[in-house]
Amino acid sequence: MSETNGRPIVLVAMGGHAFIQRGEKGDIRDHEKNAVGICASLMTLIERDYNLVVTHGNGPQVGNLLLQNELTQDNVPSMPLDVLVANTEGFLGYVLQQALLNHLRGRQIKRYVVTMITQVLVERDDPAFQNPSKPIGPFLTQEQAEERRDRLGWKILDDAGRGWRRLVASPRPVRVVQRLMIRDSARAGHIVVACGGGGIPIVRRQADNDYEGVEAVIDKDLTSSVLAAEIGAELLIILTDVPQVYVHYGKPEQKALGAVTLEEIERLQAEGHFAKGSMGPKVEAIVNFLKAGGKRGLITSPARLADAMDGRAGTHFIGKI
Amino acid sequence: MSETNGRPIVLVAMGGHAFIQRGEKGDIRDHEKNAVGICASLMTLIERDYNLVVTHGNGPQVGNLLLQNELTQDNVPSMPLDVLVANTEGFLGYVLQQALLNHLRGRQIKRYVVTMITQVLVERDDPAFQNPSKPIGPFLTQEQAEERRDRLGWKILDDAGRGWRRLVASPRPVRVVQRLMIRDSARAGHIVVACGGGGIPIVRRQADNDYEGVEAVIDKDLTSSVLAAEIGAELLIILTDVPQVYVHYGKPEQKALGAVTLEEIERLQAEGHFAKGSMGPKVEAIVNFLKAGGKRGLITSPARLADAMDGRAGTHFIGKI
Repeated sequence: MSETNGRPIVLVAMGGHAFIQRGEKGDIRDHEKNAVGICASLMTLIERDYNLVVTHGNGPQVGNLLLQNELTQDNVPSMPLDVLVANTEGFLGYVLQQALLNHLRGRQIKRYVVTMITQVLVERDDPAFQNPSKPIGPFLTQEQAEERRDRLGWKILDDAGRGWRRLVASPRPVRVVQRLMIRDSARAGHIVVACGGGGIPIVRRQADNDYEGVEAVIDKDLTSSVLAAEIGAELLIILTDVPQVYVHYGKPEQKALGAVTLEEIERLQAEGHFAKGSMGPKVEAIVNFLKAGGKRGLITSPARLADAMDGRAGTHFIGKI
Repeated sequence: MSETNGRPIVLVAMGGHAFIQRGEKGDIRDHEKNAVGICASLMTLIERDYNLVVTHGNGPQVGNLLLQNELTQDNVPSMPLDVLVANTEGFLGYVLQQALLNHLRGRQIKRYVVTMITQVLVERDDPAFQNPSKPIGPFLTQEQAEERRDRLGWKILDDAGRGWRRLVASPRPVRVVQRLMIRDSARAGHIVVACGGGGIPIVRRQADNDYEGVEAVIDKDLTSSVLAAEIGAELLIILTDVPQVYVHYGKPEQKALGAVTLEEIERLQAEGHFAKGSMGPKVEAIVNFLKAGGKRGLITSPARLADAMDGRAGTHFIGKI
């Protein structure tokens, strides 16, 4: 058992799109500015004396690295997807830790910040590998896509007239390899950035049981729920661009959810209220966390986080007390 | 004071070229294979019951990212050098931690491995910023180089007929921002990869004292000596491609050094035995470490590390007992 300062751990997950606002081109200034904004809202958790772990997506960032790979394949060795995820963990972890450190220093709060490069184990026989469904990287011509299919073994998809794309598997996260160091650093009061991009996907190699990277993408919300349970977090917060979760979303009878029990949210899930590509995995991640023994979940926007922590905004999910 | 398992910490530094052997093109298979080889040699330190911190350079890897930036600048936002260093910390940290974990698992040794994204503070008024001297990135035509000088404020250099290159500053490392987490994780027995590429260079911004990244390169050996002193390492090992340090290197009277005291090595330094671009900074790093209270330094090759730890190879540097 490691030392702990006795404070509860909160894990906060945000998307890779949080670093690039609508209309921005996603250069480093955009990333820095948006990180400063999000991290300002995270300070409410520090002021409330939580130990803090931050996870994040990397969709647009890893997309840019895949495009660079494509465009420079004759000049620079192309790196596989697991390595590109590792690159974005370094990049976005740095941007986040710089913003966090500056907010802490500005408030004269003596807490440390560190990003941990995180491998996440998935099962080699996860059915997702039989049926890759996640489109990644740039749009290609049919000829380009078929050339890569034949040369590199890519699965490819004709994406509704917009062009051809590569498809990769999105297997379920099983275990976060660095969970112990993440937990111990968080317990000591350090702010830890981890599991960027959902984590670097690795499997056990059949021949020798060694770890090896796989070209896949793990959903960052699902990884966050696994990590939250592993490190004994009390609260899992998923930040998104809407302040609350809705039932009958986009219909006249649309209604925001203020607080729901585990039982209620499972019923609403079963009724199909939460869209697969957007709110679905976030709700699923919270449900998984509560079923694994987590006490509380929260989905809200960065702007409403402080109010949500006062019980005045967001959608709250109630697990065991 | 954090928990410690009582074992001494050894810090091992290696170059970015260690991941790419002569004649290799530097793809991921080359990186993985060479990491497996180097990490096999590091296992001798685990078997000797040291706590282990690993640092590494990133020259060829960050060079490839700079080239990708150049070639795709019309399609993808170019990232500044500090961000590219962060990318390589993720990339090479992942490759190292995977190789280390597999060696540990193969030997049934229960130790954990984590890479920490590391910022390193440098002085804004370091004289290196007035006189950028480190050539980085691809060779350019004169026209390309001058366009970037005018548009981006680059310092440029006509590199002896081979083409034009960008010059950046190589300031001295002052402090490793994540030193406390690196030390505590190492003391707990976890293997920590840190300070990749010499660390992400940051300064305090004049306006508000905030941290901000700078486009510079910090010598990885000098950063390693600063970190080794900060975390109370007993031993600093610098791995390179020669088994020992030589005086009169390349001359008929060339002689390998087996063991030298701090006093002796400072005399040899003053006599100019160690070349600026190669052995000079390595010897300087060891000397700095010993002067800061370090007990022992060692320069050798990965292949001779185990023998060197038996006192049968390498060049040993003796500080205070």
